[in-house]
Amino acid sequence: MIKHPAFACEPWCLRVSGLDLDVLAQSESLFALSNGHIGWRGNLDEGEPHGLPGSYLSGVYELRPLPYAEAGYGYPESGQTVINVTNGKVIRLLVNDEPFDVRYGRLRAHEQSLDFRAGVLRRTAEWESPDGCTVRVSSIRLVSLVQRAIAAVWYEVEPVDEELRVVVQSELVANEQLPRVAGDPRVATALEAPLVACENAAWDARSVLVHRTRQSGLCVAVSMDHVIDGPPGTGVVAESSPDLGRVTVTASISPGNPLRLVKFVSYGWSGARSRPAVRDQADAALAGARQTGWDGLVAEQRSYLDDFWARADVRVEGDAEIQQAVRFGLFHMLQATARGEGRGIPAKGLTGSGYDGHCFWDSEAFVLPVLTYLLPEAVAHMLSWRHSTLPMAEARARQLGMKGATFPWRTIHGEECSGYWPAGTAAFHVNAAIADAVNRYLDITRDEAFETSVGLELLVQTARLWRSLGHHDADGAFRIAGVTGPDEYSAVADNNVYTNLMAQRNLLAAAESCKRHPEEARKLHVDEEEAAGWRDAAQAMYVPYDETLGIHPQADDFTNHQVWDFAATKPDQYPLLLHFPYFDLYRKQVVKQADLVLAMHRRGDAFTPEQKARNFAYYERITVRDSSLSACTQAVIAAEVGHMDLAYDYLAEAALMDLEDVEHNTRDGLHIASLVGSWIALVEGLAGMRHHDGTMCFAPRLPSGLTELSFTVSLLGRRLTVKVNRDTATYTLLAGEPLTIVHHGRPDTVSTAAPVSHRIPPISPGEPPTQPPGRAPAHRLSMQDTGFRRPTRA
Amino acid sequence: MIKHPAFACEPWCLRVSGLDLDVLAQSESLFALSNGHIGWRGNLDEGEPHGLPGSYLSGVYELRPLPYAEAGYGYPESGQTVINVTNGKVIRLLVNDEPFDVRYGRLRAHEQSLDFRAGVLRRTAEWESPDGCTVRVSSIRLVSLVQRAIAAVWYEVEPVDEELRVVVQSELVANEQLPRVAGDPRVATALEAPLVACENAAWDARSVLVHRTRQSGLCVAVSMDHVIDGPPGTGVVAESSPDLGRVTVTASISPGNPLRLVKFVSYGWSGARSRPAVRDQADAALAGARQTGWDGLVAEQRSYLDDFWARADVRVEGDAEIQQAVRFGLFHMLQATARGEGRGIPAKGLTGSGYDGHCFWDSEAFVLPVLTYLLPEAVAHMLSWRHSTLPMAEARARQLGMKGATFPWRTIHGEECSGYWPAGTAAFHVNAAIADAVNRYLDITRDEAFETSVGLELLVQTARLWRSLGHHDADGAFRIAGVTGPDEYSAVADNNVYTNLMAQRNLLAAAESCKRHPEEARKLHVDEEEAAGWRDAAQAMYVPYDETLGIHPQADDFTNHQVWDFAATKPDQYPLLLHFPYFDLYRKQVVKQADLVLAMHRRGDAFTPEQKARNFAYYERITVRDSSLSACTQAVIAAEVGHMDLAYDYLAEAALMDLEDVEHNTRDGLHIASLVGSWIALVEGLAGMRHHDGTMCFAPRLPSGLTELSFTVSLLGRRLTVKVNRDTATYTLLAGEPLTIVHHGRPDTVSTAAPVSHRIPPISPGEPPTQPPGRAPAHRLSMQDTGFRRPTRA
Repeated sequence: MIKHPAFACEPWCLRVSGLDLDVLAQSESLFALSNGHIGWRGNLDEGEPHGLPGSYLSGVYELRPLPYAEAGYGYPESGQTVINVTNGKVIRLLVNDEPFDVRYGRLRAHEQSLDFRAGVLRRTAEWESPDGCTVRVSSIRLVSLVQRAIAAVWYEVEPVDEELRVVVQSELVANEQLPRVAGDPRVATALEAPLVACENAAWDARSVLVHRTRQSGLCVAVSMDHVIDGPPGTGVVAESSPDLGRVTVTASISPGNPLRLVKFVSYGWSGARSRPAVRDQADAALAGARQTGWDGLVAEQRSYLDDFWARADVRVEGDAEIQQAVRFGLFHMLQATARGEGRGIPAKGLTGSGYDGHCFWDSEAFVLPVLTYLLPEAVAHMLSWRHSTLPMAEARARQLGMKGATFPWRTIHGEECSGYWPAGTAAFHVNAAIADAVNRYLDITRDEAFETSVGLELLVQTARLWRSLGHHDADGAFRIAGVTGPDEYSAVADNNVYTNLMAQRNLLAAAESCKRHPEEARKLHVDEEEAAGWRDAAQAMYVPYDETLGIHPQADDFTNHQVWDFAATKPDQYPLLLHFPYFDLYRKQVVKQADLVLAMHRRGDAFTPEQKARNFAYYERITVRDSSLSACTQAVIAAEVGHMDLAYDYLAEAALMDLEDVEHNTRDGLHIASLVGSWIALVEGLAGMRHHDGTMCFAPRLPSGLTELSFTVSLLGRRLTVKVNRDTATYTLLAGEPLTIVHHGRPDTVSTAAPVSHRIPPISPGEPPTQPPGRAPAHRLSMQDTGFRRPTRA
Repeated sequence: MIKHPAFACEPWCLRVSGLDLDVLAQSESLFALSNGHIGWRGNLDEGEPHGLPGSYLSGVYELRPLPYAEAGYGYPESGQTVINVTNGKVIRLLVNDEPFDVRYGRLRAHEQSLDFRAGVLRRTAEWESPDGCTVRVSSIRLVSLVQRAIAAVWYEVEPVDEELRVVVQSELVANEQLPRVAGDPRVATALEAPLVACENAAWDARSVLVHRTRQSGLCVAVSMDHVIDGPPGTGVVAESSPDLGRVTVTASISPGNPLRLVKFVSYGWSGARSRPAVRDQADAALAGARQTGWDGLVAEQRSYLDDFWARADVRVEGDAEIQQAVRFGLFHMLQATARGEGRGIPAKGLTGSGYDGHCFWDSEAFVLPVLTYLLPEAVAHMLSWRHSTLPMAEARARQLGMKGATFPWRTIHGEECSGYWPAGTAAFHVNAAIADAVNRYLDITRDEAFETSVGLELLVQTARLWRSLGHHDADGAFRIAGVTGPDEYSAVADNNVYTNLMAQRNLLAAAESCKRHPEEARKLHVDEEEAAGWRDAAQAMYVPYDETLGIHPQADDFTNHQVWDFAATKPDQYPLLLHFPYFDLYRKQVVKQADLVLAMHRRGDAFTPEQKARNFAYYERITVRDSSLSACTQAVIAAEVGHMDLAYDYLAEAALMDLEDVEHNTRDGLHIASLVGSWIALVEGLAGMRHHDGTMCFAPRLPSGLTELSFTVSLLGRRLTVKVNRDTATYTLLAGEPLTIVHHGRPDTVSTAAPVSHRIPPISPGEPPTQPPGRAPAHRLSMQDTGFRRPTRA
């Protein structure tokens, strides 16, 4: 766990002083820069030491065989894995004869800081070499949110005491050696040197490398240029070889006369265009960036972020850590999605190679619901990517004997890459999440062009899937058998409540969209009979209910299963999936992540308040949160049923997932969905925001640890700020026509003329529910008391 | 399909005239010789052409890694695969300068015959070489049922027209090249040359080869010696190299002066003893066989089989094909089990490498129930092998979080080798089949020594498994959730009726056995409380029943599932598992093989006659018989509910499974369980034999195609022959104390003094049930009419 006092708590910045090599890989993830197209992990400039070197391009992957001890029909035979592309970050330094390496000599000072408003990663180091020469090294790194092919580094080295001879090698490095991956040796072999050299060149202070992948047939070009500012006599040489582009700068520097350089790096890749075209694309982007210059890139970046924070900022009073964590999360959400045009959003963004760089349901079920209110254009891009993969999803549905389309459980390019069907193929709910994201985006934007070109077809093809996946029983109920819901500690069950309710909405949304756009619907061969079939199935959707217990079983028979023996489960046996077989997890009442509780969030209209309270209490007792996707949803429902302090605890867990390395795998990349989950916990949890039938509803209420919460959402051409205090909530319309809102069930209209304020009604929900032994979230209020938190810095 | 008129229909022999290379691999399986310890496929003496060369030793396997696209806790990482050991069958022949190869020159005549009474494979060939020389080659091959390490070949070559120079090379060949295996290339690599040479020697007419396996650490020695009888001037040379032992005989032969040789081959192997010890073991066995001599081996073999047939023969009048097929099946059952001391019975016996040579539940659930009445000593051996693997089964239970022992779904040595847990690990019913086999063996033999040393512990450890696998629900019912029953088109379901009923019997049998042997029970730490827990669980066992349909669902919710769309399924889409994903098969009502119907066979006491009739009709409509393990069970219940002609059709399918290559995979080896299934269909089906509470019950009745059926069973020191005619059944006690039998519900006593006869009551079961379109069994009576059958030969 990263519980390091060096992580100072600041509202707009993540800063670490000193350098702890034990958590280097985690901090590389936390300090990753990305624009959704290029991702650079926060590796040290000089390349080593490293936890996991990482440079990623969204959509650049290699194929690898998926092996099976016993093969089966329809099993994917080929997997896709994100690859570490050419590293453009490396700037090595030789001080007199000693390479700058923090493992040798003495690191007198070291600080890294990620600035959420400037969108840059700053680093300063003061290092004494083994032979006693001391230098100050400073760098500022950015991945441009404005020029999507561009990253850049500002680099300065200055002696502290005396004149020194330095050599700076600014590099492009392909096929870096990676830490050994455990498991199937073939995976490691295939991905150890994934790039085949095609072309290399160097001249002036420039170099370009062009490579291709072996199996997936992608061409990747990386180009760099430099602006060098050094004392008289500074020399520059550029060289290249197949896997290396290098610009070497030699200079004699003295205190007050540093060597400075700006490194511009551009990336281009394609699976279709020729090698010269891809190289030219990279070179052209580089020319554009040079024209903009370092200061211009920095200014653009700031301006882009100013606009983002004006739309998206969340202010939290009373808990500085949460304030920082929420902005950290929103910043990384932006980095993961801003410029991912035409590509999916991987579960880890472009911050690490975890989960093979795959895109899961996380994006539509957790990230897009937030982006819809903050950055709706990114939602349209992501869903357009899904739309572009429809031919693959339709072919997959055909292979599985279904109609319409079934989207992959995990993928980079669009093909199903899941090698374990009970938790992959059977998790059809990913399709409902996509349809739900379409629906929400349309509700909030009324983007007709999107609906007719992208949204309608996604709704229609997913509705067709559900209609063919389910069937009517003898009583006329519509059942969906043998599928896997969100909770991965159950699988292949009948009538998963979440799945059935989400499918119900999907079916109705498709029918409604077809009604709005009859002509486009006809082009998709939807006739009235087909749409009526969707409505009928939705209306007849079966939702199991356990009358004896007065709760909804997560799926048929769930409540007949034995409750997991939590008392006998040791703390180090979590996550359970690493210590118990699926067969035993599946057959018992133990929940990895919110499933029925997620249904109560996304389909709150399908449950009474009493059912919500009873269901929540029931599932809390058996939910272990072995998934990072759970805490935010539990926060939302805890808040809805009135357990505000419990909601606060879950909010903190979601928000601090990576800052505290809760799941011990931040080293492989950040948990993007959990980070945006802090927004979900605050806005849909504490503030109780829901969008029902065209109306924004709020039910705000603060936990005892917070004094104020305010946030802004954009919808239907308006911008609304909500400020919640202990007793009142104030709604301010910043722009747009008057808007009807609902506060704790009471409708009101807010206009730009004046804010409206409402009192928050009291609630007494009774005793909070309990969790399995040892699995309660950390109790945030008691941590405040014990001073467990990180030091706060103004 | 082998629908070749060359397969003549004879009561005691399988004979084929001519040689059809298209079905060579299938006929190699049919003509395989084995004693349960050594298996030799019916490859041609000269080695080539071949379908699949095969020489196997029970228990000799190699390890191979089991790969997973996504790994999981408790997945077996290492698999076991039977290997083709050193081939001792090969006798090559050079006629003048031409190698005898049926693909060249002209094969004037060729006949192979497997003699069920002599226990030998005979072959005669008359071949004209490309340069016009004609020879007559005859061979007789046996694998000794009496001397388990010994196989032998009698070989003769004689010219038809003129004196010829011949060279005979009698060989031991290790690491034969095998036909390429589809799928994972590493499997093929690992098994292509599985033997590492350790030692080779040759002298006189002898040779010995010693090899070891690479990973599994087994040492295999093969030794051969020859008795050569040729014209004066016949020369003999012995040579050896690491993978070849060769004795070369040269002779000039003329009509009436043939060259004859007898080849004795012995095998020895061990995972524990030293290489010299294993070599000496083979050499010693060889010395014994030479001492016995060819005629002695043949006589011993005949005598062994005379005894077997006196105990086991079944006579069928009215259908010569079935008569032949039943004896063929019993002969191969004997070959698979006779001398398998201390080893499992693979699904394919030792007739091919299908299913990796693994032992499944087939042996206990299908083979042992037959052996119990015919060859009970083989049952004790097989169960003792299971008992010897208890440490592995107990470790596996621990790994899965269970108590007691859980035996592997598939194995050679005892470790679980299933690479797909929903149809492997989850198929816990294998444990109940083992306990049931123990129980039946004890009922029929009262073998106390076996009970205290083997049976009791098997019953106790499996009962412990069930007790820990199930749980009581709020109403006190004992449920077993998340397991897979016999039907492999469903998986991971709750309360599979077959599993629950078999577990119930298992729990009670363990409690009873502990009561009989309190001292031994105490040694296993069973106290009264534990036994009471088993009884309670058995008593409270939950068995789902669908009141609306009036039938038993195969498992919870089964009847809520959609019925498979049989009308849309094309004939070439069977077996379904090769054309549809598991996810879709599992979620629909479609049955691969008898499951609930098997429950009605094995636990007939748990169903009323009306339930049996309704259940059978229901499941017939959705059972596709994509498994060879289904037809015999359907025959049994069809007969019980009175559909005798349908039972006859299923009997025929089970009996002709390999003779007609019904499942198109006889090339990989015979379906031993289906072959013994013909006995089950006749004796437990047509004759309705059941053993309940110490009493033998019969309910015999013939289908219209048969005129008489008679068979013999041994039980409790008695031998009983039952003869069934159209109107009467006659019970003859051949040996032993008087015995109470039940004929169609009426008890009677039969003694050696005189047979008793009873009339067969009429039955009118109404219309026979229907099967899915295209999946009805071949209607045997109409085949009789159309003359589709093979020619009958006296």
